[in-house]
Amino acid sequence: MADQWNHTALLVIDMQKDFIDEGSPFAIPGARAILPSVYRAVEIARKRGVFVIWVVREHDPEGRDVERFRRHYYGNGKLKPAAKGSRGAELVEGLEMKEGEYKLVKTRFSAFFDTNLHSLLQGMGITHLVVAGVQTPNCIRQTVFDGVSLDYHSITLLSDATAAATPKIHQDNITDMKNVGVVASKVDEWGHSDA
Amino acid sequence: MADQWNHTALLVIDMQKDFIDEGSPFAIPGARAILPSVYRAVEIARKRGVFVIWVVREHDPEGRDVERFRRHYYGNGKLKPAAKGSRGAELVEGLEMKEGEYKLVKTRFSAFFDTNLHSLLQGMGITHLVVAGVQTPNCIRQTVFDGVSLDYHSITLLSDATAAATPKIHQDNITDMKNVGVVASKVDEWGHSDA
Repeated sequence: MADQWNHTALLVIDMQKDFIDEGSPFAIPGARAILPSVYRAVEIARKRGVFVIWVVREHDPEGRDVERFRRHYYGNGKLKPAAKGSRGAELVEGLEMKEGEYKLVKTRFSAFFDTNLHSLLQGMGITHLVVAGVQTPNCIRQTVFDGVSLDYHSITLLSDATAAATPKIHQDNITDMKNVGVVASKVDEWGHSDA
Repeated sequence: MADQWNHTALLVIDMQKDFIDEGSPFAIPGARAILPSVYRAVEIARKRGVFVIWVVREHDPEGRDVERFRRHYYGNGKLKPAAKGSRGAELVEGLEMKEGEYKLVKTRFSAFFDTNLHSLLQGMGITHLVVAGVQTPNCIRQTVFDGVSLDYHSITLLSDATAAATPKIHQDNITDMKNVGVVASKVDEWGHSDA
C-alpha cells in the first residue's frame, strides 16, 4: 500500500506561537503537551513522502477578515492573535516548514472554508487526509467534517497530536468524529500502519 | 451619497510584474498602457475612503496549486509566473499597497474562487464593487460575473483601467458584462460620479 502515501496529505493545523506558547492569552491548555507527537507525525509523513500542509490562521491587523465573534481582539492597541507578519503568527518553536511543503492560510475554523485546499488536493489526486494540531472542537473538527462532506476516502485523526482545552472536550469530540467514520489513531500506531 | 464609498471596494487585479512588464513572456499586450489609469483609480479610491484590495496571483513554485492547463509552466527550470516570493509576483513598479489596504491571493481566474473575498466584503458591509486590472476576458470577467451572481448591488468596470490581448477582445467582453447589468465607466467619469 506504499502507493497510498502519494495520495495522502498531513494537515498540521494552527500550531502557531499565539495558540501554543505559554504566556500567550490565546494559548490552548494542553497544546504544548502534543508538540512531540506533532513533530513525530511530521517526521513520519516526510519519510513516507506524504504531502505536508501547514495550515495557519493569519489575520488582518485591523480584524477585517476575522469572525465577528472575535473581531474585538483586533485593531490599534489590541492583542491581534495571529496577525499577518507578527511573531505570534509563526509556527511554534521546533516545527518548521521544509521546501516542497505547503503553507495554507485560513481565516475561519475549517481549513476548507474560503481557501484553495480542496482544489489543491483534488489537483494532486489526494484522497486521504491525516490531521494533527489544535484545537479539537473547533479548527480540527470543522476541517474533519468538511473533509467527510467532500468525500475524502479516509480521514485519520491523530489523537495524541491534537488537543483541546480539556481532555474531556478532546475525547467527546473524537467520539463524535469516529461516529461519522473518522479513524482515530495514535501517532505511533499510524507510523506502523499502512493506511 | 458620500456614505456609499464606505460600502464600496476597488479591486485591482493581477497588476504584477510578470503580467505587465515588457519582456515578460506572460505580459499582456496593452497592459502597460493602462498603468496611469489604474494609478488614478487607486488615488481616487483612497481620497474617497474606498477600501482598496490588491488581488494577486501567487503560485506554488512546483505548480501544485495552478490550473491544470498551465501547470506545465511550473517546476524546476520552468518560468513559474507569479511564483510565491518571486520578483515577478510583486506589484508592477508605480503601484504600491498602502497601510490599511488589503492583499488578497488567488489561484484561479475569479477573485472569489477559493478565497475569503466574499466573507471579507460581507463582514465589512461592502455592497458595491469597482474593478480594474488585467485581463478583461479572464480574471476581470470571472470576478465580475461572480460578483453579479453573489448579488453585489453594483459593479463598475473601469474600462480604461482594464485591458486584454487586443482592443476587440476587451470591447467584446465589456459588451457582455454590460448586458448583465455591469456599469462600464472611464476612470475620470467614475472620479466625477457619486456611484
